[in-house]
Amino acid sequence: MLEQSFMQQAVIAARRGSGHTWTNPLVGAVFVKHGKILSVGYHHRYGQRHAEIDALAQLQRPQQAQGATLYVTLEPCSHFGKTPPCADRLIEVGVGRVVIGQRDPNPLVAGRGISKLRAAGIPVSVLDSTTALNPAYNFYYQHHRPQVTVKYAMSLDGKVNQAEAQRTYLTGAAAMADSQQLRRQQQAILIGERTLTIDHPRLTIRDAITDEPVPIRMVVLHDIEHIDTSQPLFKAPGPIWLLTTHPATCQLPEQVRVFTRTTWSPAAITALCYQQGIQALLVEGGSHLQAAFVRDDLADQLVIYLSPLLIGGAGLPAVYAPDWPSPKRAYIPPVTTLLGNDVKLTTRRQRKCSQE
Amino acid sequence: MLEQSFMQQAVIAARRGSGHTWTNPLVGAVFVKHGKILSVGYHHRYGQRHAEIDALAQLQRPQQAQGATLYVTLEPCSHFGKTPPCADRLIEVGVGRVVIGQRDPNPLVAGRGISKLRAAGIPVSVLDSTTALNPAYNFYYQHHRPQVTVKYAMSLDGKVNQAEAQRTYLTGAAAMADSQQLRRQQQAILIGERTLTIDHPRLTIRDAITDEPVPIRMVVLHDIEHIDTSQPLFKAPGPIWLLTTHPATCQLPEQVRVFTRTTWSPAAITALCYQQGIQALLVEGGSHLQAAFVRDDLADQLVIYLSPLLIGGAGLPAVYAPDWPSPKRAYIPPVTTLLGNDVKLTTRRQRKCSQE
Repeated sequence: MLEQSFMQQAVIAARRGSGHTWTNPLVGAVFVKHGKILSVGYHHRYGQRHAEIDALAQLQRPQQAQGATLYVTLEPCSHFGKTPPCADRLIEVGVGRVVIGQRDPNPLVAGRGISKLRAAGIPVSVLDSTTALNPAYNFYYQHHRPQVTVKYAMSLDGKVNQAEAQRTYLTGAAAMADSQQLRRQQQAILIGERTLTIDHPRLTIRDAITDEPVPIRMVVLHDIEHIDTSQPLFKAPGPIWLLTTHPATCQLPEQVRVFTRTTWSPAAITALCYQQGIQALLVEGGSHLQAAFVRDDLADQLVIYLSPLLIGGAGLPAVYAPDWPSPKRAYIPPVTTLLGNDVKLTTRRQRKCSQE
Repeated sequence: MLEQSFMQQAVIAARRGSGHTWTNPLVGAVFVKHGKILSVGYHHRYGQRHAEIDALAQLQRPQQAQGATLYVTLEPCSHFGKTPPCADRLIEVGVGRVVIGQRDPNPLVAGRGISKLRAAGIPVSVLDSTTALNPAYNFYYQHHRPQVTVKYAMSLDGKVNQAEAQRTYLTGAAAMADSQQLRRQQQAILIGERTLTIDHPRLTIRDAITDEPVPIRMVVLHDIEHIDTSQPLFKAPGPIWLLTTHPATCQLPEQVRVFTRTTWSPAAITALCYQQGIQALLVEGGSHLQAAFVRDDLADQLVIYLSPLLIGGAGLPAVYAPDWPSPKRAYIPPVTTLLGNDVKLTTRRQRKCSQE
C-alpha cells in the first residue's frame, strides 16, 4: 500500500511533463528514506535531464540518496542518449533499492537498466502499475507503429455535414475545447486532401502555450502541383508533412516536408510514423480516410463528438467508402461525457474482435 | 408541500394502469380527510371505472367522501362516455374540495368538469404538476396528431447494417429488452416495406403479459398484391394495418386492415393516427421512412441504441435519403444510459429549432 502511494507521487510528478517530453515518455521519480519522501523529480522536456537525475538534484545533499529507496515510474535507462545512463548514476550515488513502475519497452533499455542495477547489488522490484502513464509510448514499441485515434464529430444520425463538399459546424464550444486537448496528446494529426480543400483547417492547438511543442500536421495528397499554399494550414506555424506520389516542382513554404510513395495506404502512413518516432497519431478525416483506417484495422481508439442534431438524407456519413466491404469492428463500451449540448464518446478497439 | 405529497400518491396509483388505459390517460385519485389518506384509486383499464370512482369504491363507506378532499391527477370528466360523468358523482357524494393535477385537454372535458364542480359550490384548485404522467395524451390533443418517436440502433459510425438489403444484429440483450419496454409505451409501431421484407420483424412485445394490449403494427406498402403473408409479422397475433395505394384483391389474414391513399406522406400517416385515436407512434425504420419523418418535422423524440461497433464503408446510414435536402434539426442534449455494451441516447426535438 505504501509502495503504491510513493509510486503514485511519482506518477503525479511525471504528468507535469505532459506534452513536452516526446519522443521520450513521461517519467517521475521519488526518493524515500525511513518512510519519508526526500525529493520528487520528473522529466521536464525532451533533451533535458531524466526524472531520476532531477529527483537527485532536488535533494539537499546528493549523499542523502545513499541507502534511500528510489520510486521511479519507468525503468532507469542504461544507454548514452542525450544524457548519460541513469542506472550508472544511481549505482554511483549508492541508492539502497529501486522500485520501478514498468519496464522500458524501448529496445535501447528493455531490461538492461534493471540488470545493471542488480549486477551492482541493488535490489529492484517491478510493480507493473504505471503502464497507463504512457499508453502511446508503450503501444509504439509493442506494435511498431503509432497508436491511432480516429476522431470525428457527427450528428445523431451519423452525418458529418449537410451535403458532400460542404463544411458544417456541428459541435459547441465545450467540444471544440476538448478536441484541442485531444490534439495536445498527439505527435501528428492526419487529414485527407478533400478535408483540406473543403474545411480549410489550421490543425493547430488554439490556445497553445508559448514554447509548447505542436503536433506535425500531415496531409495525404494526390495532387501536390496544384496545392494552394495560401490556405490557413500554411499560415499557422509548425511542421507540415505532405504525403504524396511525386516530388513537388512548385515552391513550398519552409515548414513543409514532402514524402513520396506510389500509394499511401494506412499501413504505409503508420510505417512512416514509426520510422519518424511518432507514437500518437490523430486521424481527423475525411470520411474516406477514416474508412481506410477502419478497414485496415488501424483505428485503435475512437473519439466521437455527437451533436444533438438530425441532418437527415443527404449528409455525408462519418465513415464512408461505399465500394468497400464492411466488416464489423468491435470496440469496448464507450465512456460518455456531456460537453455542453454535445455527447463525447471515447472507446478503444476490443482485443478480440467479433467477426461475424 | 403536503398537497404535492398527496398528489404524488395519486400519480403513483395512476401508473399502475400503464399500458392498459388507452385511448384514456393514466389517472390516479386519493381521498384525504383531516390530513389522512382515506382511499386510493386509479383507472385500471379502458372501459372500466375512472380513478375517482375507483377511489370512492375503496372507502369503507361512501359517506366518508362527504367533506373530504379529492386529489386527482386529471380533471374529472363531465360527459357520458363508457361511464357516467365523474363530476356529477363527486357532487352527489358531497366532496368538500377537489385538487386537480392538470386540466383535461380532451375537448369533451376541457374545463367543463371544473366548471361543473365549481357551479355546485365545490372549491377546485389546479396544481399543473402532473402533465408528465401522460405526455402522449397531452401532445395528441395539443397538436392533433400522435407524438412520434423515431427509434434506431446504429454503429459508432451511424450505420444500421453492413450493406443495403442485409439485416445486421447490432445491439445486445439489455438494449433489446429496453426496446421492448419502448414498444409497450406505444399504440402503434410503423415500418416501411423494405424493413418488412429484409428484416422480417414481428414487431411484438417479446415478453408480453397475458391480456396486455399490443400496439397496432403498421406497414407502409407500395405493392400490396405481392405481399408475403407467411412472414413472421402475420404469424404473431394482434392488429396489422397496411397503408397502401389501392385495395388488395388477394386474401389477407383477418387481423389485417387496409387503408388506401394516393401517397402516404408522414403527415398523412399521422393524420390517420389522429383519426384513429393513436396518441403515441413509434417509427422503427427503415432509413428512408425515418428520413421522411425528419424532413417533415415529425420526429418529436429519438431513441438511439448505439452499438460499440464500426462498420465502415458500405453500411446503410440510420437516416438516409440522398436526394433530399438536409436541414439541421436541433434536439435537446441527449440522456445517455449504458445498457450492456450499448449506449442508449434519448432526446426530444428542441422547441425552437436552429435552421441554418
